[in-house]
This record gives sequence, structure tokens and C-alpha cells, in this order.
Amino acid sequence: MKYNIAVIPGDGIGPEIIREAKKVLDTVGKKYGHQFCYTEVLMGGVSIDATGVPLTEEALETAKKSDSVLLGAVGGHVGQSNWYSLPPNQRPEAGLLQLRKGLELFANLRPALLFEELKAACPLRDEIIREGFDFVVVRELTGGLYFGERKTYEENGLRKAYDTLAYDEEEIRRIAKWGFEIARKRKKKVCSVDKANVIDTSRLWRQVVKEVSADYPDVELSDMLVDNCAMQLVKNPGQFDVILTENMFGDILSDEASMVTGSIGMLSSASLGNSKLGLYEPSHGSAPDIAGQNKANPIATILSAAMMLRYSFDLEEEAAAVETAVQKVLKKEYRTVDILSEGKKLVGTDKMGDLIAEEI
Amino acid sequence: MKYNIAVIPGDGIGPEIIREAKKVLDTVGKKYGHQFCYTEVLMGGVSIDATGVPLTEEALETAKKSDSVLLGAVGGHVGQSNWYSLPPNQRPEAGLLQLRKGLELFANLRPALLFEELKAACPLRDEIIREGFDFVVVRELTGGLYFGERKTYEENGLRKAYDTLAYDEEEIRRIAKWGFEIARKRKKKVCSVDKANVIDTSRLWRQVVKEVSADYPDVELSDMLVDNCAMQLVKNPGQFDVILTENMFGDILSDEASMVTGSIGMLSSASLGNSKLGLYEPSHGSAPDIAGQNKANPIATILSAAMMLRYSFDLEEEAAAVETAVQKVLKKEYRTVDILSEGKKLVGTDKMGDLIAEEI
Ligand SMILES: CC(C)[C@H](C(=O)O)[C@@H](O)C(=O)O
Ligand SMILES: CC(C)[C@H](C(=O)O)[C@@H](O)C(=O)O
Repeated sequence: MKYNIAVIPGDGIGPEIIREAKKVLDTVGKKYGHQFCYTEVLMGGVSIDATGVPLTEEALETAKKSDSVLLGAVGGHVGQSNWYSLPPNQRPEAGLLQLRKGLELFANLRPALLFEELKAACPLRDEIIREGFDFVVVRELTGGLYFGERKTYEENGLRKAYDTLAYDEEEIRRIAKWGFEIARKRKKKVCSVDKANVIDTSRLWRQVVKEVSADYPDVELSDMLVDNCAMQLVKNPGQFDVILTENMFGDILSDEASMVTGSIGMLSSASLGNSKLGLYEPSHGSAPDIAGQNKANPIATILSAAMMLRYSFDLEEEAAAVETAVQKVLKKEYRTVDILSEGKKLVGTDKMGDLIAEEI
Repeated sequence: MKYNIAVIPGDGIGPEIIREAKKVLDTVGKKYGHQFCYTEVLMGGVSIDATGVPLTEEALETAKKSDSVLLGAVGGHVGQSNWYSLPPNQRPEAGLLQLRKGLELFANLRPALLFEELKAACPLRDEIIREGFDFVVVRELTGGLYFGERKTYEENGLRKAYDTLAYDEEEIRRIAKWGFEIARKRKKKVCSVDKANVIDTSRLWRQVVKEVSADYPDVELSDMLVDNCAMQLVKNPGQFDVILTENMFGDILSDEASMVTGSIGMLSSASLGNSKLGLYEPSHGSAPDIAGQNKANPIATILSAAMMLRYSFDLEEEAAAVETAVQKVLKKEYRTVDILSEGKKLVGTDKMGDLIAEEI
């Protein structure tokens, strides 16, 4: 089979980690007889530099016509880059928001798990993580405060601003279904996170999630307040299977969850909609301080490519092959600098890609 | 001097911990020659049971006329208590929101610190907390999503809801000043947390905080995105001095911060406005599961009373005496069950109050 992949290297370490992911994909292609065709697309700071905007119409069109999108990272140093003297909706990150909205990718999946070999990197004490943990944050991605009406204005000589957090039942229902579907393939537990003791959208959220749960009697549903969830992620991350939440809460909690694993350089993410077309990217940022130095960990991007094989192309065996290859390389004690510990073998970005490709 | 304190025992463990705080205050009164007069005020579930609403007009008036308010905790088990079959704005927690707004307490201060004696309870690894940490979350408390216009409605057969996150420059300026004033008495660092890469209120927030900082050249200001802050609290809490943020972000981050200390039963909080009148309460909740069992840790409430002495009554020496007494009792290895570790002496709520009072 032939698959058309729109590839967005983006900024910072983006090009390096994307190069390694393509290396691994090509190896999978050779072994299993698939053809992966890449079309490079500009987004973020590099797009601003080349075209003046963080995402052109044509770039979005190319992404739309592809079978799937693989992204490195976008953005630079806020204090140091000219990109940040532009108005907010013309900055690198705005390109990402436009892409999510343009492709109608309303479901963001971010696995947070403890890699057995990397337990020592976890900031939590051994007693807490003895049993390990493995959960997914399912975040609504095209609604809420991110896309509601907003305005900055002056009234009676006073500067004022507002943002709107809005949801309708359809938006909640479709993401809730994703949450339950994923839980069904895992430990069958959904924890829906909201602030229903204060805001209306959270109360509607809680109600609709409950309604959806009626179609999933095999999946256990619980509700948790967002402030409590921020605590529980530190106290006992092992209690979670699927955390289902709205856009802004999901932004905060999924980043907290990544850090709790201690190995953010290992964490993949997928943004999906109603079609097979998805956007796959590492959970970490563009790390401009180490860009071009062959230091970046390409594993999160490689595992994102594996998610692409699984969710967009239904190539379960191939996805598993990539994941197993990563496990093997870790077992053999190869590490990029971000996950290095005493006695382990330090390798650069390109070598890590080579090693994983070799295991396939 | 005579001080009139409105005391709100509230629900769950509230009455027990308030009893111990009064015990300590009375000892301070005797030693330093002050008279603390208590007027009991109903709020939360007990108020619903007695009056039908979580906070009556009279209760609010009594609080307004007092010199300061000391609160235990409000709320019960959501699944088990009848209070939660009421509409959201009539539930126990709504009383607290009405009190904050009614007393115009726009500044919430929540210290998060590692007690030397309780380091073992911290969920973070020793390497991370070796140097300890001691910071304060300064949270805006009467604006944002908590008090913006909200609505649940039906349109074209679809249920919809929205909440509004609104701020004006005055609201931001007055809380920012609090942040800088507090930093001035501490390590002189303010980290202002927002989501300026996405929402308008955060951009106004960032701008106004920057303007305010001009009046505090001795205080260092940095900005951080809320998702990053949720990570940094786990990765390296020692980097913070004062975290300044809006209402909802503050709700999430201050709870995460409490959990990161590992001893939430020790953490006090103060809600302040433009007058000397403040609301002081422990950071933890009402813990209905252990209510009435003499198990609750009264220290957070006792330390909240100390904050009251300091901020509302300007009794710095007396406040320090309470804090020192708490330290001494910990040094002598007395512990309530929530902070118990091997070899330490277990005591109940009342005994812990006695011990602290004796040290004064
Ligand atoms: C870059 C930014 C706009 C984005 C977000 O807030 O969604 C990022 O933090 C993320 O989580 O993917
Ligand atoms: C009880 C609830 C309304 C309250 C809040 O969200 O402000 C609580 O979580 C807090 O932080 O004091």
C-alpha cells in the first residue's frame, strides 16, 4: 500500500527528530511492503520566515489531502525570537491551532506511562511508582477557551478583556465517545475531569459524559474535579486509565502528567477527528537551545509515527514492531542525554534512530 | 486589645480543627494580653441544614462586621450527601464563593513549603527536594471564570453552555501589587503564570503585571505558561518564590503545589482584600470520612490563625510564636496520623492542639 504523509519538521529540534522518524518508517515500509510518500509542509516559525504567516492556505490544503500528518515541533525562544514581536495570532503556535481546527482534530490523545527502564528518571518516589503507571489523557482540542469569542477593549478608560469557554453537547459527546472507546481497549476506566462545582460548561460536560457512558456499560466512569486531579497525578498516578477532559484543563493536566513520567522525551501524542487523517507529534516542545546539536531524543516522534501506523493506517503489527524496537534499544541500555543515567550508553539523535531502525 | 473573630466551623472535620485553633489563640491572648471574641457563623452544609441556604444574609453581615474570619472547611461527600442534589448555586461550596465575593477578598495566598521534619512525606525524590522549597501561590479570587457571565441553554435542539473569563486592568493590578509586596518580604521573585499564547485575558494579564513591576525594581519578574508551570512544580518546585496567577489557574496550581509538599494537613491559606479583614482557612478540605474521630490534623488551621494574627491584626510577634510552637512540637516528634512516619509519636486532634498551646 502507498501512504501519503504530510511531514512538518517545524522549528528547533523538529527537523532532526522528524528525520529519524522517517528513517524508522522507511524501514517499516521495506520490511512490510508499504510505500510511505512524504510531502514537506511549512508551519510555525520557519513558515513565518518563508511566507510571513505561520500556516499558509496551501500548507493546510496539502495537509488536508494527505493520509496523515507527522509533526516535529513549533516555536522558538519567546524572549529571543522575532516571531514573538508579531501579534499572537500570527506567531508560530497559532499555526498549530489553525491546523488542529482546519483538520477538525477534536481528540488529542497523550499517553503518559512509566517506561520500566526509565523509572529512575521519574520525579516521584519509588514507593509511589512501584506498580508503574500507564494512562492516557484524552483532551478535547477544538473547543473551549481556545476557540471561543474573545476581545480586548477599553471601557471608561479601563482596559478589559474576555475569553469565552463554550461547549455544546455534540462537541462533548464526540470526545466522550473517544474516551470510552479507548478505555474499552485498555483497563476500562474513564475518569472525567471538570470543575462542575463552579462552571456551567463543566456541568453540561459531566451530564453528557454520563449519558454517553450508558452505551459503555463495560467501562467504569468516575468524575473528578480538576484541582483534585492535579493533586492525584502527583499522589497516585497509578489510579488512572483514561482521563477525559476539556481543552484547557487537558493542556495543563497532560503536561503535568508528562512531567510526572520523568521522560517527556519519550511521550507521543495523536490528534484525531472523525476521519482517518490524524496529526502525530511528540509531547515535548521545540527545545531551541539544543537544536542542531544531535542531542534531541527522537523516540517521542518515532512512537508518534507508530501511533500513526496504528490509528490512521490500521497497521497494528507494524506499530507494535516500532514499539518493540524502542523497548529493545532501551533494554540494550542506549540513551539520549535527556534520559541518561549512570552506566548507560550515551548516543546522539541520529544513532538512536539507527538503532531503532535496526531492531525492526 | 480586643479582636472580634467570626468563626465558621463548617462541615466535616471543621468543628474539631477550629476548636484547636481557638485553643491556641486563647493561649496567645493570655500570654500577650489580647482578647479574642468569637462569633460563630453558619456556612456550607450545616447552614443548608439549618437555614436552607449555604450562607444567609445575616451570616455574611456578621462576617463583614468582624475584624477577621476563621474558617474550618465546607462540603461533604458529593455522592452521599443530600446537599449535592441541590442546584449548584445552593450547595455548600457556593457559600464560600459568596463569602469571598461578599467580603471582596480578591487575593488568595497559599504558602507551599516543605517542613524539614516532614521531608519523607513529600512525593518527590530526595534529589529534587534536597534544598527544600518555600513558595507562595498568590491567586486572584473574585474574578475570571468563577464570577463571569455563564449560561446553559438550548438552541436548535442542542444543549449548550458557556462561561466567561473576564478581567479588567484594575482587577489585575490590585492582585499583582499583592504579589510584588509579598515577594518583597521574601526572595524577591515573582513568576506570573498565564496562557498568553492563546487567550486575551492572559495577554492583558501579562501586560498589566509588567506595568506594575515597574514600581518594584527590586523584585525580579518572569512569565510562565500555565502548562509549563504545572510541569515545573513537579520538576523543580525550589525555583519558585511567588507564583502570581488568575483564579482558575490558581485553583489548579495551588492544589498541585500543596500535594507536592506531601503535607497538605500543614498548609494554611489567607484570602485578603483592601481592608484588614481577611478569611483564613486550611488548604485542605472537610474530610467527611474522618470527621468526629479526633484524627484530623489541626496544624493547617492553627497556622491559618497565625496568618490572621500577622495580616489582619499586625501581631507579628504573636504569629511567629504560633509558628515556632508548631515547629517545636514537630521537632519533639509528635504527629497526627496524616503525617505519621516510623518511630514518631501518634497523637489525636485535641492532643496536638494541647501540645502546640503548651509551647506558647
Ligand atoms: C503551543 C500551544 C498553543 C499548545 C496548546 O496549548 O494547546 C501546546 O501547549 C500543546 O499542548 O500542544
Ligand atoms: C470549593 C471550591 C469552590 C474552591 C475553589 O475552586 O475555589 C476550592 O477548590 C478552593 O480552592 O478553595
